[in-house]
Amino acid sequence: MLLDLENVPRTLYVECEGERPCVVMVDQRALPYELVWIRTVDWREVVNAICTLAVRGAPALGVAGAAAVMLAAFELATEGEKDSVALRLRQVADTVAEARPTAVNLSWGVDRAMEVASEALEGSETPLEMAWALYDLTQSLIAEDEAVNRAIGRNGAAHLRALAARKGRALRVLTHCNAGSLATAFYGTALGVVYAAAEEGLIERVYADETRPVGQGARLTSWELSRAGIPVTLICDNMAATLMAQGLVDAVVVGADRVTANGDAANKIGTLGVAVLAHHFGIPFFVAAPTSTIDEAMATGDEIPIEQRDGSEVLPRPIPGVEVYNPAFDVTPAELITALITEV
Amino acid sequence: MLLDLENVPRTLYVECEGERPCVVMVDQRALPYELVWIRTVDWREVVNAICTLAVRGAPALGVAGAAAVMLAAFELATEGEKDSVALRLRQVADTVAEARPTAVNLSWGVDRAMEVASEALEGSETPLEMAWALYDLTQSLIAEDEAVNRAIGRNGAAHLRALAARKGRALRVLTHCNAGSLATAFYGTALGVVYAAAEEGLIERVYADETRPVGQGARLTSWELSRAGIPVTLICDNMAATLMAQGLVDAVVVGADRVTANGDAANKIGTLGVAVLAHHFGIPFFVAAPTSTIDEAMATGDEIPIEQRDGSEVLPRPIPGVEVYNPAFDVTPAELITALITEV
Repeated sequence: MLLDLENVPRTLYVECEGERPCVVMVDQRALPYELVWIRTVDWREVVNAICTLAVRGAPALGVAGAAAVMLAAFELATEGEKDSVALRLRQVADTVAEARPTAVNLSWGVDRAMEVASEALEGSETPLEMAWALYDLTQSLIAEDEAVNRAIGRNGAAHLRALAARKGRALRVLTHCNAGSLATAFYGTALGVVYAAAEEGLIERVYADETRPVGQGARLTSWELSRAGIPVTLICDNMAATLMAQGLVDAVVVGADRVTANGDAANKIGTLGVAVLAHHFGIPFFVAAPTSTIDEAMATGDEIPIEQRDGSEVLPRPIPGVEVYNPAFDVTPAELITALITEV
Repeated sequence: MLLDLENVPRTLYVECEGERPCVVMVDQRALPYELVWIRTVDWREVVNAICTLAVRGAPALGVAGAAAVMLAAFELATEGEKDSVALRLRQVADTVAEARPTAVNLSWGVDRAMEVASEALEGSETPLEMAWALYDLTQSLIAEDEAVNRAIGRNGAAHLRALAARKGRALRVLTHCNAGSLATAFYGTALGVVYAAAEEGLIERVYADETRPVGQGARLTSWELSRAGIPVTLICDNMAATLMAQGLVDAVVVGADRVTANGDAANKIGTLGVAVLAHHFGIPFFVAAPTSTIDEAMATGDEIPIEQRDGSEVLPRPIPGVEVYNPAFDVTPAELITALITEV
């Protein structure tokens, strides 16, 4: 197997077009059949991209949050005094941070941006200089994200190396949703582990849960892995159990949107079910996430706010008298997690 | 709640149009948005309906198998000598029985028809008299199926009554796929239990797994339950775990396509996963099926042939380099089944 990461597009980056930076994102709603880019200087378009899942994945949301604040800073920089810029930037920041509630990374990225903005405005810098400081921050967050993911990959590969050594062969790994390069600026968390392990020849195949209702596994993970040259088999979410019962899954690797102080992990709906199955069948269950995903302020997963999305995602055309329940995340308790893999 | 079973259509019945009986089936591919009927005197159309899932569900397949043989008998009755009719009917019977491999009921229905046919032809009856004997058999199988389902319902309601008494309230029941009236001639197996319990006021709500990739839960179970007046919430298959973790599921009731001598049960893909979850969360897991589903000749579930269906059901438009795994059934081991509910 030849790992070909150059075939995987960068999820989100910033370009300078003359006077003002421009945010460029893969429009993930169009995948896997079209590779469409969103290019914008308008922070509202970034918020819209976050709300509509054009950009998604906890680490990518962190970068997108900072990038949205940066675009707003450039917009506001020409419009007023420092105090009014600071006030209006704070309002924008709140709007951005609230675009989606579950991933802690989004507000983490917004907070990092607002720290930089406050420091600049409280000092001697002009609003425009503050905006350029946010540009530098966004670029460094993107670089940092990739570096963190590569470190997660190395750390996770060590777990898979030990497992492959015990089994005496390359591994079949199951993943849920997309914690891949497309969920980050580049490289991925759970799939970062897969990529790092694949470079050592430790991966035979990845099974990708399709991940209803939005289909991140079907549309993103399977596409991304095939682009990268990793053998991938798509399954419906309800097929993981029979794969495990047949001994076809050696390890599960997933990402996380928020990890609480006790080690509980919120991740895409369906992750809890996979964790229970892995536990039942004696299969190691790894969560790969940057330390920015860890929310020390929350004691347990019971406190994590779970985003409820519209029922039309599950059932586009209603059936009279039929209700729909559509939580976007669930919480996997720490005791079902074999190891949390971070960059440290 | 007012149970309104008259609002649920009969799945499959036989009408006489002049000289020849006609099989009438709900075309389940058109549900939930249209109620379309298939009316045919051609056994090949019944086989086509079986293969394309226009008619499905283990008990309904038993009736459909016998009905197909009956239609073939009327077609052949005018065409030849007893010996050649017998030979050609045997060929048809093999074709019908092989239309789908997993549900034992299909070949059970075909075998019942062939026993009646052989007895008639070995005796003094003409091929046409033999065909009318098959007509009588089909009608009696339909009546028998409903009677069996109502008995399953009564027996299952006793389990739910005891559970509701322990909890001191009506129950939230989760089901997977459609083991409802639409999976039988009428009334249903797993949903027969729900209907019988609902008549006693024991059902608060049913959660219906959508059941990818064909969506029997989304298209059939939720439609059927809402028609019957039972409160129903549709979920994606991967949401069952979080419902259970929140204490929102009191019992699981599913059907079965084949039960082996040791009590293992093959049922729609995803059933095993629900059974493991129910076990983990301490929730009773009931399998409701007629005794015709029990295959005493098979020792364990390992021997059950599992139908592999086309990947396009999962992913209608292929993604280059992405494989699809699409087994239609999985096997739940007996130790995960709280009780097998039959008509006896």
